Amino acid sequence: MSAVFSQADHSYMARALQLANKGLYTTDPNPRVGCVIVKDELVVGEGFHLRAGEPHAEVHALNAAGERAQGATAYVTLEPCSHTGRTGPCAQALVVANVARVVVAMVDPNPQVSGQGLQRLEAAGIDVAVGLLESEARALNPGFIARMTAQRPFVRLKMAMSLDGRTAMGSGESQWITGPEARCQVQRLRARSSAILSGVESMIMDDPRLTLRAEQLQLDNADDVVRRQPLRVILDTRLRLPLAAACLNEPGRTLVITTPEHLAEKRERLTQAGAEVHVLPAGSDGRIDLALMLQWLAENEQINELLVETGATLAGAMLDAELVDELQLFVAPTLLGGEARPLFALPGLSRMADQRRLIILDMRAVGRDWRIIASPQPTSASDDTKVP
Amino acid sequence: MSAVFSQADHSYMARALQLANKGLYTTDPNPRVGCVIVKDELVVGEGFHLRAGEPHAEVHALNAAGERAQGATAYVTLEPCSHTGRTGPCAQALVVANVARVVVAMVDPNPQVSGQGLQRLEAAGIDVAVGLLESEARALNPGFIARMTAQRPFVRLKMAMSLDGRTAMGSGESQWITGPEARCQVQRLRARSSAILSGVESMIMDDPRLTLRAEQLQLDNADDVVRRQPLRVILDTRLRLPLAAACLNEPGRTLVITTPEHLAEKRERLTQAGAEVHVLPAGSDGRIDLALMLQWLAENEQINELLVETGATLAGAMLDAELVDELQLFVAPTLLGGEARPLFALPGLSRMADQRRLIILDMRAVGRDWRIIASPQPTSASDDTKVP
Repeated sequence: MSAVFSQADHSYMARALQLANKGLYTTDPNPRVGCVIVKDELVVGEGFHLRAGEPHAEVHALNAAGERAQGATAYVTLEPCSHTGRTGPCAQALVVANVARVVVAMVDPNPQVSGQGLQRLEAAGIDVAVGLLESEARALNPGFIARMTAQRPFVRLKMAMSLDGRTAMGSGESQWITGPEARCQVQRLRARSSAILSGVESMIMDDPRLTLRAEQLQLDNADDVVRRQPLRVILDTRLRLPLAAACLNEPGRTLVITTPEHLAEKRERLTQAGAEVHVLPAGSDGRIDLALMLQWLAENEQINELLVETGATLAGAMLDAELVDELQLFVAPTLLGGEARPLFALPGLSRMADQRRLIILDMRAVGRDWRIIASPQPTSASDDTKVP
Repeated sequence: MSAVFSQADHSYMARALQLANKGLYTTDPNPRVGCVIVKDELVVGEGFHLRAGEPHAEVHALNAAGERAQGATAYVTLEPCSHTGRTGPCAQALVVANVARVVVAMVDPNPQVSGQGLQRLEAAGIDVAVGLLESEARALNPGFIARMTAQRPFVRLKMAMSLDGRTAMGSGESQWITGPEARCQVQRLRARSSAILSGVESMIMDDPRLTLRAEQLQLDNADDVVRRQPLRVILDTRLRLPLAAACLNEPGRTLVITTPEHLAEKRERLTQAGAEVHVLPAGSDGRIDLALMLQWLAENEQINELLVETGATLAGAMLDAELVDELQLFVAPTLLGGEARPLFALPGLSRMADQRRLIILDMRAVGRDWRIIASPQPTSASDDTKVP
């Protein structure tokens, strides 16, 4: 495999990444993939994966290129597949098309098949190069990668707060504190997610629908995007979800996860009201084991990116269990005061030495609000920072 | 007065503003002022006010220009003075130097003398133009303007918080949560301020020195800057400031403001320990009347910019009384949890309708921390936003 890339290689792969991104809201549970085919310094074919069950990026690009694919270079953001899925192996399609060179941004993250597509290409005498713009390619599919390598989703926790870190008044009185631009961004976070997770307490308090709404997405393909509603997952240890919950009457599925000891009768009524109920073993504290729940969602529901939209208790518990990969905080330019509701309950946290550190990745204006993207650091890393 | 400015006018005034800014940390209690003298499209003299008691910007620039000032244009960021202070009236100096034109960014904010310098120039047949880059010029001297027009300082409230809006653990345990770059920025905020205000509770808890330290300022002229230590003002209704408080043994003055009913003996001991004690009438709640205190500081101590560095109670009270002009929040990338100390006590705030709105002016990285600059909006403005 060659490892030196030209400026032209970079620019064609950047275009392939751009194409892949067109599938951001639709490929689920498949990864977002783009492909560009270049012959004699001309782009002769482009493609991206649009939707599960439809052709892969390479097939679209090869179809567009036709005979011009012969002797061409194919740029693909993810290692071409070698297995025969619903659309046939893409590595084989590239061999048959007789391309001369394949440049791949990243290998398939699934350890079971990783490298097999590349081997197939090399066995056919194709020049293969890997690793061009790899971190950009990885950033396209954080959930798919987490599911393939760690058997859990990429977990994104979204919260909205006042500038002094409050989500609602002490009385529980709450309302949207962020503006329409922030709400549009939240809709897009939902749209890229396989599922939305919430706690039953938030469902009882706020009765959210947890759906995609075409008019709020502000996307050209919004009508296409909302054809797939993310799975709604409600953690509900004691099965308290009201049978009249708004989300039960929305398009898409609502999955209630509970613990074993609860009445079959209530399960039955929730099922009749439109929910699916799944029982998971409780942790030692009687609550749903969060890590186990994530693993179950990845393995049984093919959840790549999970958006957590919930209150201080479940959000704090997810952070405390170090299960949050990315924190997105929408900050409204307002103060709610010291009596108002906190952002996170982190009950175990009482000493400065226990503080949970983050890396702030991005902070930018979203309308009159601001969005902060941060990455929680493992507790062991916090400990390290105390060493002089 | 002419009112159309050329591109060249803009660029010379921008230079004059840049020069004025060189006095940012040293002119107190005078305003920061810069001057550029241009003859035949050449800069023949530049100057800025460095320190009270030393020549004004115009005098430095005229000295540099010498005879070339004849028939030249002078760009000044603030209306030249017409009164004979320690350095003689600058308007007269411009007349004597025989300049042909004077361009001024803003008139003198002191209503007693505003326009008198311009009249003196015009009476001498000089072409006078006003208002070029006026908002930039006003931004150089927010405190001087507030003191001259409203008889109170420009109040800047600085707080450091975790990403979830907390300042210390529930136990009171605290430590610097922001990094060295943020601390450098706080030093510079102190350096541009006439005074630093704190509450006695914070002094008892944290025993801060509230001083400028040359090594933390990271300025070329740091040694010069620290020759003037901002006045330290401690609000101490019941005279609880410890006689051993660290700030009492630092260079510069410490002024304790208290209410009338307290023992002369304790006042005497504090005075012996190095403090100055001033008595102000109490408000109806028995506490120091904050608006009155600000007015007193402006009128008696010539306080232009006041930096408030204190805890949640006094900070909340200042916000509640709508006495904060600018909020500077240093945000550390860490979470302290829902049991930790809040940023602001705003006890009167219990309904969403009462929330205090702000305009976020700037948000940027400062080392690994972030700094948010926001401007609290008057309560009446919040009310307006509720009207559909």
